[in-house]
Amino acid sequence: MKIVMLGAGNVATHLCFALQKADVRIVQVYSRTIEAAKKLANQLNALYTNDISDIYNDADIYIYCLKDSILENIIPKIKALKAIHIHTAGSVNADIFSPYFKQYGVLYPLQTFSINKAVKFSEIPVLIEANDEKVEKKIKALAELLTTKVFLATSEQRIKLHLAAVFACNFTNFLYTISSEILTDAKLPFDILIPLITETAEKIKYMSPIDAQTGPAVRMDQNVISKHLSLLSDNPNLLLIYNELTEQIYEKYQKN
Amino acid sequence: MKIVMLGAGNVATHLCFALQKADVRIVQVYSRTIEAAKKLANQLNALYTNDISDIYNDADIYIYCLKDSILENIIPKIKALKAIHIHTAGSVNADIFSPYFKQYGVLYPLQTFSINKAVKFSEIPVLIEANDEKVEKKIKALAELLTTKVFLATSEQRIKLHLAAVFACNFTNFLYTISSEILTDAKLPFDILIPLITETAEKIKYMSPIDAQTGPAVRMDQNVISKHLSLLSDNPNLLLIYNELTEQIYEKYQKN
Repeated sequence: MKIVMLGAGNVATHLCFALQKADVRIVQVYSRTIEAAKKLANQLNALYTNDISDIYNDADIYIYCLKDSILENIIPKIKALKAIHIHTAGSVNADIFSPYFKQYGVLYPLQTFSINKAVKFSEIPVLIEANDEKVEKKIKALAELLTTKVFLATSEQRIKLHLAAVFACNFTNFLYTISSEILTDAKLPFDILIPLITETAEKIKYMSPIDAQTGPAVRMDQNVISKHLSLLSDNPNLLLIYNELTEQIYEKYQKN
Repeated sequence: MKIVMLGAGNVATHLCFALQKADVRIVQVYSRTIEAAKKLANQLNALYTNDISDIYNDADIYIYCLKDSILENIIPKIKALKAIHIHTAGSVNADIFSPYFKQYGVLYPLQTFSINKAVKFSEIPVLIEANDEKVEKKIKALAELLTTKVFLATSEQRIKLHLAAVFACNFTNFLYTISSEILTDAKLPFDILIPLITETAEKIKYMSPIDAQTGPAVRMDQNVISKHLSLLSDNPNLLLIYNELTEQIYEKYQKN
């Protein structure tokens, strides 16, 4: 089985390493920036290019780990009509491939990837989708080389999962950034928050997040809230987030 | 050393268990609701009351684990003038005690406590403050029975830390709740998000949250964002949070 990887960013890199670990051969890496293609390809013993017309035509599988807007421009330029074409995007329909190829699908790893942080791919849920059962079997087999957590999901389910992930991961991480800035202002180290952040993420393995809610908003502790608002009085951005989330939490728990 | 615990909620309960484990004797539990006082006291082999005038006067330390608004009403009614008085609130000044007592301070455990979820108290950062060095030594000694992570902090630092904790824990948990509701709508199990939530919390042990940021907002992936916004079009609450956080993330990373 020969694979061409299109993309050399965070997802592409982690996916390539996981494939390599499973003895799957990446023959070529494509990226718009030649340095990125070269850097990843060299670690895989693969060829590399930044020229779409140089992309190898005889691979079995083409994996597209590209920004959504680039994806739609590249797909029509790929010539490998007999191969399976797979994208890894949370919010792109599988049928983006349908005008061009007969075998296609999606392999969406649900994780936050940063270049310099290793992850255990075997623990990552991977959502797959395919245009027919035959292709589904092949994509499933590929996914199962990477992880035990393979789920079938429609494009509609996957985009909702992606949205949920934005709240649970991207927005959450931004809240961590906000809290780190507040701590810098207080001349306290960010590390002091780590056990709290860990426990907050840990708790929801044992209880639903709706039952795990604590803090001044859920009990509408006006004393605390007004002190916090006065600390934020010169920061309209944080004030807006604080007020909106506090009100929404209070509203939800009043109703329940 | 004899301790009276005022309060029988989440923080009081976890703190009492940690004190008991360190062989510190809780002699009495006070709570406005007699059932709560009784339930906790019975687990500690302690007396209990819901009558302020029945509170034992000869303990060495009084620990106030009460909602901030209740705290200020109860303090003037306590008679034990020679004891040390400690509250556990993030956002209340230590000097709330100063009109009434000569030895007082704060012992603030930075954690999210739920009644039915055990925590390792020994890993919890505890911030302490006292009205003088002698009292500080005693509160520090008490805190060190519970955890190795004892920090001195002023009331001003502590309230900022509390605010940071609201963002990193309370608001974060609310984002988990939102994501669980989106998954319910997609007919996917909440469990599928757990590895992502764990990794998001884990990552910031190895890199600062500002470097850990991923997702459509940081790369302003308009294709993805517009799909998400259309999914949220009938939910003004979530739309508001999504738009505000997306814009603030984008703004911050444009600047950097």
